[in-house]
Amino acid sequence: MKNVLGRDIPEYIEGIGKLEPFQGAWTKLKKGWMDEPAVAIATKAKLPHENKLCESLEEAIIKANPVNGMTISFHHHLREGDDVIVKCISILSNLGINSITLASSSLTTAHDGLVPYIQDGTITRIYSSGIREKLGKAISKGILDIPVIIQSHGGRARAIRTGKIKIDLAIISASAADCEGNATGAVGKSAFGSIGYSMVDVEHAMQSIIVTDNLVDYPCIPISIAQNFVDYVVKVDSIGDPSKIASGTTRITKSPMDLRIAQLAANVIEHSGYFQNNFSFQVGAGGATLAVAKFIRDKMKKKNITGSFMLGGITSYCVDMLNENLFKALFDVQSFDAAVSSSLLNNKNHIEVPSTLYANPFNCGCLTNKLDIVVLGVLEIDVDFNVNVITSSEGYITGASGGHSDTASGAKLAVAVCPSFRGRIPIIKKRVNTIVTPGESIDVLVTERGICVNPNNKDLELRLRKAGLNIRDIHDLEIEVDGITGIPEKIQFTDKIVGIVEYRDGTIIDVIRQVKE
Amino acid sequence: MKNVLGRDIPEYIEGIGKLEPFQGAWTKLKKGWMDEPAVAIATKAKLPHENKLCESLEEAIIKANPVNGMTISFHHHLREGDDVIVKCISILSNLGINSITLASSSLTTAHDGLVPYIQDGTITRIYSSGIREKLGKAISKGILDIPVIIQSHGGRARAIRTGKIKIDLAIISASAADCEGNATGAVGKSAFGSIGYSMVDVEHAMQSIIVTDNLVDYPCIPISIAQNFVDYVVKVDSIGDPSKIASGTTRITKSPMDLRIAQLAANVIEHSGYFQNNFSFQVGAGGATLAVAKFIRDKMKKKNITGSFMLGGITSYCVDMLNENLFKALFDVQSFDAAVSSSLLNNKNHIEVPSTLYANPFNCGCLTNKLDIVVLGVLEIDVDFNVNVITSSEGYITGASGGHSDTASGAKLAVAVCPSFRGRIPIIKKRVNTIVTPGESIDVLVTERGICVNPNNKDLELRLRKAGLNIRDIHDLEIEVDGITGIPEKIQFTDKIVGIVEYRDGTIIDVIRQVKE
Repeated sequence: MKNVLGRDIPEYIEGIGKLEPFQGAWTKLKKGWMDEPAVAIATKAKLPHENKLCESLEEAIIKANPVNGMTISFHHHLREGDDVIVKCISILSNLGINSITLASSSLTTAHDGLVPYIQDGTITRIYSSGIREKLGKAISKGILDIPVIIQSHGGRARAIRTGKIKIDLAIISASAADCEGNATGAVGKSAFGSIGYSMVDVEHAMQSIIVTDNLVDYPCIPISIAQNFVDYVVKVDSIGDPSKIASGTTRITKSPMDLRIAQLAANVIEHSGYFQNNFSFQVGAGGATLAVAKFIRDKMKKKNITGSFMLGGITSYCVDMLNENLFKALFDVQSFDAAVSSSLLNNKNHIEVPSTLYANPFNCGCLTNKLDIVVLGVLEIDVDFNVNVITSSEGYITGASGGHSDTASGAKLAVAVCPSFRGRIPIIKKRVNTIVTPGESIDVLVTERGICVNPNNKDLELRLRKAGLNIRDIHDLEIEVDGITGIPEKIQFTDKIVGIVEYRDGTIIDVIRQVKE
Repeated sequence: MKNVLGRDIPEYIEGIGKLEPFQGAWTKLKKGWMDEPAVAIATKAKLPHENKLCESLEEAIIKANPVNGMTISFHHHLREGDDVIVKCISILSNLGINSITLASSSLTTAHDGLVPYIQDGTITRIYSSGIREKLGKAISKGILDIPVIIQSHGGRARAIRTGKIKIDLAIISASAADCEGNATGAVGKSAFGSIGYSMVDVEHAMQSIIVTDNLVDYPCIPISIAQNFVDYVVKVDSIGDPSKIASGTTRITKSPMDLRIAQLAANVIEHSGYFQNNFSFQVGAGGATLAVAKFIRDKMKKKNITGSFMLGGITSYCVDMLNENLFKALFDVQSFDAAVSSSLLNNKNHIEVPSTLYANPFNCGCLTNKLDIVVLGVLEIDVDFNVNVITSSEGYITGASGGHSDTASGAKLAVAVCPSFRGRIPIIKKRVNTIVTPGESIDVLVTERGICVNPNNKDLELRLRKAGLNIRDIHDLEIEVDGITGIPEKIQFTDKIVGIVEYRDGTIIDVIRQVKE
């Protein structure tokens, strides 16, 4: 069958089940009430003063009675510094457990070590927001029989709430925890800031383990995860290296191209009609997107505008803007550098939020629903404004869905930023390899060669033209870029589906096929 | 049938269903996994930037589509100052809605106005922790066909989680809220501190309304209740009078009798073996119980002991002890005077907790499970240490279960304090009118005429005798008191059951019968 964007979606996939095709960015939301099932919080009990502390990670995992075919969840707040996920899988493998469904909020280069555990059948299914490098390449080459399921951060919270992901065991690394499992990522030598992706896991998992390298006196403060959701606690030497969270992405770029694009994007925002007192704002941590914040900051000061809140992945740059009173609050689901932790800990206007509050589409209104302006990076964008942030120009899985489609759906103004080509590869395409975010939720594309406004937002185009900005038709720009780079050879795929891209509401927006070698 | 305490419990009650008899304070907890059902969080959706604000409380209630037989929940954080519950019921009555199940976390003298709505069939069923004065008397006289169900604070959280109470509509008054429903009780002219009893309501209700007299700019900070659980928001002139929260109970008593008992109880605690560094502590706000805190505070300073946390209903007195660094943290499910709010707002060691974290027995371990010492008031206590805190010496419903059985169950040392008689009514009885807290979870009774240790705690008795305290057999004391007061006439009850006392795990520990007039 074809979904509403014309993508071929199988009706059924062995090991996954029936698929529901994508119907439009807001179609399901219009129903108000969802007829999806929902998972309740596990009903269990402990006796007063019962001990939760285990001697080792292995002991904790054994106590949770692992079985073949179980679903195990993790967070990726330590990003490339994570030292827990591979360790836990190796323990499970040593225990002889196989056919595990791995449900991590995301996977990074720290998880290349999972490849052998896929090869030997320890892991047979993966849910993740992102997959990179060796692991992504291995999956794109067909290492898994069952396709990986790529979810947005909001989509993952939804899937856990509705039981599409049924977590048997959540293993949560924390930079501080007490003997009862009250835990946080905001303090300790391995502090990584918000632990926002884990909250929905512990609430809905059948069992959960807190892994910490910093066991503190009871009670752990702040309590980001509460003891009533925690079965076991274990102290280990190290949960990872927080210095690898940032990996250089959270400094303002020095690339003249990125700065040029960011400056243009800031001009677009300034004249969009949404740049006014109490506006809310989200930017990513990547080169051009974070640089937009720099220019917006200058414009806010110049025009005496103060905003309502910043949302999302929070960088030190956001913290600075909070401290300058440019925004009233930060909502932090993920901290993009370790330096954010002290603000999260000490400033009550810097608020840690669970991913379900951040972006779950199936509740009474997540924070992305309240967003005015978001700036989004892209790997590829097509003439219908559909965005790919998951597969490379060679067709390999190498990115992350993240909050991309969540924020695009919620924001009044979703600004995509990118150079028109990278190396000799055009970024603006007739058709992107893989759609993650539907074009109808992207309002404007900003490149160094001009600004393209989505034709469904005529008012915006009018306002930007009035401000004298260089507005171009995206089809013209696409042709122009092709003229510069030449049209790259088509990637050869086999028929095998190696990945499924879920839209935030659980419908299938695209599939990823095996790269032919 | 008889439960394990020998109380007659019917097997079935029309309008309530099958009853499970009480089996012992910890019997169900020993199972670990509960086979009870559980209620999931409602799955629904709103479009981005959808408006939740209503013009009036009536409009908000109408939008929630009220129907006959619905269950509607409230909190009682404003206690005797509450001005929302009766108003909402009158609106529903005017709309022609009847057969409502009222599930309030408690009811106070502010709710005497509900009597006419019971008489006319608007309300036909009540769940509450406490019921007082006119309303209690009316119920004890048989005004309701279906018995009220008295629950502990932990038991209520359990009942909502497991679907025994299925909330159709939660109406939550907040002293500050924004247009999306982010809300708190910690700021505003009507600040009442913690909103801990409501959190489980909004999470599990099919719909919820935030009622505030202080609509603030988005986002409301702190966010005690998050927008993703809120359907509608309405601003009213007043949610009530926070000055009536305390009603004089939170000052240290000047009664020489209460002070004497408190001093003795402090001596018991000092020599109990549990008064040591990092001990945790809970006291109520009533006369003798709060006075115990005063003496313990002195002893802590004298002996250089610092505690871990104070729990429960939090008074300014607890805040003072936190500020003196006598305790590391306060866990606040309910603030017993309005002055507590600023501490809750500004001190990160003063932590607002939901009732399910406070005391729900069916999770991975609530805070009461971690309690070392609790001091508890009583209306009556019997020679088996069973405690009544719900019916008066005349048999009328006039108290509250509160956290009594929850904390007694969890604490290593549960100290009951009371005068041996009040007026000419003995407080120590052969058999209490109504059992709320089973004697097996009470370790010691302190009266002005001596200290009685539960025979199941021989070690404690030894330690107290060694310290030279006046330890007496409770049977002897009971006879002595009867000798002073005479044995009061037996209260005459009819066969009609007007109330059911649930133990925290949902089993029935006792029933309350209609007072014969």
